Amino acid sequence: MRTVKVEIDHAPYDILIGKGALGRIAQIKALLPQPRVAIVTNATVAPLYLSALQSQLEEGGVNVLPIILPDGEQYKTWETLNLIFDALLTARCERKTTLIALGGGVIGDMTGFAAAVYQRGVPFIQIPTTLLAQVDSSVGGKTAINHPLGKNMVGAFYQPKLVLADLAALDTLPKREFSAGMAEVIKYGLIDDLEFFEWLEANIDGLMARDEAALAYAIERSCQNKARIVAADEKETGQRALLNLGHTFGHAIEAGMGYGVWLHGEAVAAGMVMAAHAARIQGALSDSELARIVGLLQKAGLPVVAPDLGADRYLELMAQDKKVDAGRIKFVLIEKLGQSYIGELSDEVVRDALAAGCRAH
Amino acid sequence: MRTVKVEIDHAPYDILIGKGALGRIAQIKALLPQPRVAIVTNATVAPLYLSALQSQLEEGGVNVLPIILPDGEQYKTWETLNLIFDALLTARCERKTTLIALGGGVIGDMTGFAAAVYQRGVPFIQIPTTLLAQVDSSVGGKTAINHPLGKNMVGAFYQPKLVLADLAALDTLPKREFSAGMAEVIKYGLIDDLEFFEWLEANIDGLMARDEAALAYAIERSCQNKARIVAADEKETGQRALLNLGHTFGHAIEAGMGYGVWLHGEAVAAGMVMAAHAARIQGALSDSELARIVGLLQKAGLPVVAPDLGADRYLELMAQDKKVDAGRIKFVLIEKLGQSYIGELSDEVVRDALAAGCRAH
Ligand SMILES: NC(=O)c1ccc[n+]([C@@H]2O[C@H](COP(=O)([O-])OP(=O)(O)OC[C@H]3O[C@@H](n4cnc5c(N)ncnc54)[C@H](O)[C@@H]3O)[C@@H](O)[C@H]2O)c1
Ligand SMILES: NC(=O)c1ccc[n+]([C@@H]2O[C@H](COP(=O)([O-])OP(=O)(O)OC[C@H]3O[C@@H](n4cnc5c(N)ncnc54)[C@H](O)[C@@H]3O)[C@@H](O)[C@H]2O)c1
Ligand SMILES: [Zn+2]
Ligand SMILES: [Zn+2]
Repeated sequence: MRTVKVEIDHAPYDILIGKGALGRIAQIKALLPQPRVAIVTNATVAPLYLSALQSQLEEGGVNVLPIILPDGEQYKTWETLNLIFDALLTARCERKTTLIALGGGVIGDMTGFAAAVYQRGVPFIQIPTTLLAQVDSSVGGKTAINHPLGKNMVGAFYQPKLVLADLAALDTLPKREFSAGMAEVIKYGLIDDLEFFEWLEANIDGLMARDEAALAYAIERSCQNKARIVAADEKETGQRALLNLGHTFGHAIEAGMGYGVWLHGEAVAAGMVMAAHAARIQGALSDSELARIVGLLQKAGLPVVAPDLGADRYLELMAQDKKVDAGRIKFVLIEKLGQSYIGELSDEVVRDALAAGCRAH
Repeated sequence: MRTVKVEIDHAPYDILIGKGALGRIAQIKALLPQPRVAIVTNATVAPLYLSALQSQLEEGGVNVLPIILPDGEQYKTWETLNLIFDALLTARCERKTTLIALGGGVIGDMTGFAAAVYQRGVPFIQIPTTLLAQVDSSVGGKTAINHPLGKNMVGAFYQPKLVLADLAALDTLPKREFSAGMAEVIKYGLIDDLEFFEWLEANIDGLMARDEAALAYAIERSCQNKARIVAADEKETGQRALLNLGHTFGHAIEAGMGYGVWLHGEAVAAGMVMAAHAARIQGALSDSELARIVGLLQKAGLPVVAPDLGADRYLELMAQDKKVDAGRIKFVLIEKLGQSYIGELSDEVVRDALAAGCRAH
């Protein structure tokens, strides 16, 4: 079992990574202020992993309230959140009841937000079951729900007490979801870890075959990268925004196509290609470096050509993104392969990058 | 103008108290990260105080988005909160837009919660316009909305950047609301400030006549008391619970009568009388001390006899309260006049106190 420590000043915690992490009941129990938990999961994940977790906890003397939500990003709403509150209040759960998120990023984000605001905050444990959740959404304490006028517009920074990333849970993950998670893995290489980017190039086949050792390493290194960035800037006042590499373009793709048509990771992949085009236009990347980025994403089963929504529509969608400061769009830009920074782009470069990103390679 | 400093470690801030505090535009402007605010208020307060505040801010070059909500505790819900998010998102308010709460505790609690979770947190300023909000709800950072299964069940600890308590705003406050605020003022005397309790006994007539000097002193001293308790225990893990003196009984009255029938402060007044009865039964208060408490509350225009819901119903309602730990109800108990502590009560004493509290004096 590998351990990554997240050094958030006021609330440090561990991420345990490995096959069977989900069964680390002793670690969970040690953190409970009261032998009572609510496990929040969804209709897809529950039949796969709920009963094992629930019965082990119950054998350990922990009272378990299972809360099973409908599956899908379209349910990441206040209405679904209220189902959690309804269940907690009906069962008279108190401030010391711990919420456990068992599922992908949607369950993790919603459960984390519920934990942040139920009775003004109850303890929270993440058991991420998608690759994306294991390498990204379960780390760093961002929680949220969507609003009809924007994704993740309502939420909180709220840290879990523990994250258990079980490699075994990935066995049942559909290929397309696995690839979506790989987009965030590759992102860490591009943000500021060239060595990892090159390791990924060398090990992409093993990873896609879900080789256990390769996966464990990639997840650990991803979590280390995210934990380091987050610990330095919990509330995203500066460097944390680097984690949004490819996301300004990506969010525009997701919104423009209608949420759910492109998976988040898929949109981020095409978005990173657009960022790479911008860098190539500015001379920060060579043609061959651009090709390496595109190639790695393709081997990870990800789309590298963005849908052609038209530059005006892209600009409009991007202006609605959260990463806007006094009306100016902030981009995460590639400085060179394996290094990125936060800055602005001239309209011209954005338009050129958009055009290039929407053309087949 | 009097200033009370709230020394919350990570986010200290000032409470300005005095006639005309609402016009301290310079103080507001100095705190804005961006010359843009949303003023959240309600249909009752808006015609009284919105336009003065808005036009002064606008003259100072600040862009103002007014958000006018329906008035009433019954609107302290997720649906109303969503009206705030709708307005903020429609106007494309960003992370640096400051939310200003202009109103009583309902507006303050909702706006504070909206500020806590809109885009995971935006700056927040309180301009409390009821006595209760000036001495209690605007101080200490508790924010919340109600859930059909319980009051204030969903919320956050979120501190404002500044509180402006304008005595002039109290001129228009209905007498019943003014009295409700007085319940919380008197509460501070009973928690741990005998000197203040005795000052209140001596000055109650002036206060009820809304004498400016008396009011300014009472509000300042109340804020000091609350600020001290809150600074020592922001997240209510211990001593902060003292602020709930009379509230376990009070919440049961509010819920039992149906929310809105008894004002919160009225219920707290009758609840404090019940707590005083419990203390008298246990020998912690003499008959004459009990009579002093009852007398002061009466002079403040508050009810001192609780509605007779029956002991069983009271116990059931109290068991649903947040201040329950592993099924045991925690009470704030009176140790002696001007001193209280947190503890438990035997069923027998609770029943006797309930019976005494429901009988006319
Ligand atoms: N909080 C953050 O920092 C952060 C970061 C990135 C993304 N996110 C959020 O995460 C969400 C996306 O997360 P996601 O990609 O995990 O999506 P998801 O939670 O929707 O999971 C994808 C699908 O896989 C299913 N699933 C989950 N685990 C499974 C398993 N082990 N086997 C089989 N099926 C399984 C889910 O039920 C779902 O149908 C988005 O809402 C996004 O906003 C948050
Ligand atoms: N956050 C906390 O720590 C805390 C503490 C105590 C109470 N509260 C909450 O505060 C709320 C009660 O606050 P409240 O007593 O101020 O009630 P309120 O906000 O409902 O105000 C009472 C009434 O007075 C009106 N009003 C407000 N200012 C006025 C003015 N200057 N002139 C004329 N009318 C005016 C309001 O519109 C309302 O109709 C409850 O929801 C309670 O849960 C919170
Ligand atoms: Zn992402
Ligand atoms: Zn109160």
